[in-house]
Amino acid sequence: MQNTITTHDLDALVEARNFNGWREETRNWSAGDLADLLEPLSVEKEAILFRLLPREQAAAVFSYLSDERQDGLLKAMANEEVANILNAMSPDDRTSFLEELPAKVIQQMLSLLSPQERLVASQLLGYEEDSVGRLMTPDFVRVRSQFTIAQALDHIRRYGFDSETMSMVYVIDETGRLVDDLRIRQILLASPETYISDLMDSRFASLKAADNREVAVEAFKESDLNALAVTDKEGFLIGIVTVDDILDVVEEEATEDIQKIGGSEALDEPYMKISFPKMIRKRASWLVILFLSEMLTATAMGRFESEIAKAVVLSIFVPLVISSGGNSGSQASTLIIRAMALGEVHLRDWWRVMHRELLSGLSLGSILGSIGFLRIMIWSWLFHSYGEHAFLLALTVAITLIGIVLWGTLAGSMLPLLLRRLGVDPATSSAPFVATLVDVSGLTIYFTVAGLILRGTLL
Amino acid sequence: MQNTITTHDLDALVEARNFNGWREETRNWSAGDLADLLEPLSVEKEAILFRLLPREQAAAVFSYLSDERQDGLLKAMANEEVANILNAMSPDDRTSFLEELPAKVIQQMLSLLSPQERLVASQLLGYEEDSVGRLMTPDFVRVRSQFTIAQALDHIRRYGFDSETMSMVYVIDETGRLVDDLRIRQILLASPETYISDLMDSRFASLKAADNREVAVEAFKESDLNALAVTDKEGFLIGIVTVDDILDVVEEEATEDIQKIGGSEALDEPYMKISFPKMIRKRASWLVILFLSEMLTATAMGRFESEIAKAVVLSIFVPLVISSGGNSGSQASTLIIRAMALGEVHLRDWWRVMHRELLSGLSLGSILGSIGFLRIMIWSWLFHSYGEHAFLLALTVAITLIGIVLWGTLAGSMLPLLLRRLGVDPATSSAPFVATLVDVSGLTIYFTVAGLILRGTLL
Repeated sequence: MQNTITTHDLDALVEARNFNGWREETRNWSAGDLADLLEPLSVEKEAILFRLLPREQAAAVFSYLSDERQDGLLKAMANEEVANILNAMSPDDRTSFLEELPAKVIQQMLSLLSPQERLVASQLLGYEEDSVGRLMTPDFVRVRSQFTIAQALDHIRRYGFDSETMSMVYVIDETGRLVDDLRIRQILLASPETYISDLMDSRFASLKAADNREVAVEAFKESDLNALAVTDKEGFLIGIVTVDDILDVVEEEATEDIQKIGGSEALDEPYMKISFPKMIRKRASWLVILFLSEMLTATAMGRFESEIAKAVVLSIFVPLVISSGGNSGSQASTLIIRAMALGEVHLRDWWRVMHRELLSGLSLGSILGSIGFLRIMIWSWLFHSYGEHAFLLALTVAITLIGIVLWGTLAGSMLPLLLRRLGVDPATSSAPFVATLVDVSGLTIYFTVAGLILRGTLL
Repeated sequence: MQNTITTHDLDALVEARNFNGWREETRNWSAGDLADLLEPLSVEKEAILFRLLPREQAAAVFSYLSDERQDGLLKAMANEEVANILNAMSPDDRTSFLEELPAKVIQQMLSLLSPQERLVASQLLGYEEDSVGRLMTPDFVRVRSQFTIAQALDHIRRYGFDSETMSMVYVIDETGRLVDDLRIRQILLASPETYISDLMDSRFASLKAADNREVAVEAFKESDLNALAVTDKEGFLIGIVTVDDILDVVEEEATEDIQKIGGSEALDEPYMKISFPKMIRKRASWLVILFLSEMLTATAMGRFESEIAKAVVLSIFVPLVISSGGNSGSQASTLIIRAMALGEVHLRDWWRVMHRELLSGLSLGSILGSIGFLRIMIWSWLFHSYGEHAFLLALTVAITLIGIVLWGTLAGSMLPLLLRRLGVDPATSSAPFVATLVDVSGLTIYFTVAGLILRGTLL
């Protein structure tokens, strides 16, 4: 079957982006035949087809190549054009095609590339945008368990020059699998003739390259280490992540959440640097969604037009009443969104959260209700505003406030949990969205309460 | 003059919290006389009076004491009661009284105390709640410039056991002043017979204990180090801050900002752990302030009662119109608050921000205005809602939206800058506060525009 495919065919395959056929047809080829087949292609096309090979086959082909061809191939992986072709694949295809490369290839590739090239290549390694794989660096110190401390220090002195950090030293076995991590302090405090194996406890913290970076933040907070090892899915050491990069991640994540809570898409760029059209796009999208939802208030108000015509005084308190619901709703949702981001509240806590927010809503609603009641009664007494039915009006507003604040608080606290349950980022239920939701339903609460209390007097 | 004060007098002085007299009266005393005078007092009272001595005098008295009395005195500093007495002083008094203790005393004190005791003592050292002094630990590795690398490694092996980190080694001169910081990698990569002084470049990053912790975050982001030295105001090394503590600070600061933006006081405790009454207090305070401000909407609506009575249809769009102003205002304020917290926007940029937000407000307002215009025209065409003057009504809403979104955006972006200028935390201008401000003024814009366009038709 080998000889049915020619270099010309492969050229066409890449041009047509028809990668499915490639994996099918070469499934049973030997590494040597594959390597020979790829050789006449341009290095970019070779890199694409190589990248699409199944993991095991890629390892076999790679080890068959000469050092020179290996380097050329790996360098091509940082080529923007190559990255673009593979990025253009649908997410589904990406997941099924882009299996993790063998650890040895990843390591060699990352060491070969500059930090800029590494950024391009990390897309191509199949690591998602927010994954640990995008944060890792290939420069770290590794030792073997049979080294003495003196040998290890000597090894570090000789090979550690490029290492990103020396806070940690990683112990690997002969296949490159991570077997322990040691703090440099353990090595510095041990006497020179001790063996590395004497210091080992085989308990170590590590991340997988495919892990989400939020997992990394948690791991750093728990471990108090300055660097964590990154392995591929089989436990082979391929890089490390250092805490200063995590510091940036924590800030970025907080910025995203804050901007979403503020009712905008995450800008992803500094405010002063983002281009004006891009900023307007990100800001307008949410404002428009909120505006469209808020249009329902016009519909709701329209339904109560006759009530308003009869008792114009009711319309006077519309902004006050609905904004109280909105404020309590965005307060509750913000607290819960943040508590979830910090890992203080989990989905399974929904019942306890609801219980707490039920009580909070009642308390806060009663406080605002009392103030509202007093405000209307005092104004009525001082200025004779609101006519003869001021007491009933005050009662209407007070009861509405309790109901609306309770509802705002409950909706605000439950929506983030619901979104998380649906797999959506809870911060997307940004506070203004809750406020809008509560505005619309708040109007219904207000006019229903008014109907019950004022029927026969004002209405 | 010495013999005019007795131990009995001092006892009364502390009981009466009359510390002003103490500094006045002992200004010219010798260290020996002062030490003798303090000796018969209880160790708590001795600690208080010692702490209130001017810096130079405290150093002199301290070195006069026996080792045992030194330890007793320092231990007493971690006594809650002592801390409470000194904390009860007014902030002004604190600032003038609690001069920074001599570096030697601070170091010895911090090394003597457990982490829990250190927390108590740090209040007493006069370091403000959000200062670097509260974050520092006294356990670090220090070397002298005349050491060889081999000697330094030996020194680390012998004395480094308690050190919080070994990523950094600090070089001090014979007086204890910080003269350089070295990464452990520099030491590990150097050959053993090199001198520390050969590695030194006398360029080092350090923090002052009185610095705000936000300064520390910036310094860590700039330096990419895992630990930074902390000195007293004269440059004597007294501790270090490690990056894992900074990670917590970054998260805490973000949490505070997020909670404030959400319209609540910062909880300062995890959501699930804070006591219910405390949480309600923190949440109610802002909700009440917002409610009271929002009451102005009732006043504003009251002023336009006759317009509403004439054209009830106007009231239908009140929630839509004012919430658009609110949303755009909280969006703008959130973006600016975060950009300031990240150091992307400074006070001096106000003009550029205003220019950007002016354009943003116009663009966003025009987008929402067009949608609003179409909504009213389409409904009027489909359902004959809004009567014969639908076009004028649509025009009113559209123009109002442009004005209100522009105003919301400008107010939302300028208020945080104004607050920073006034020395207030910009996050306190939490988004709902801007929304409330814009609600009230938005009503005026709406009814003014309506008056101009609908005069003679609906009004």
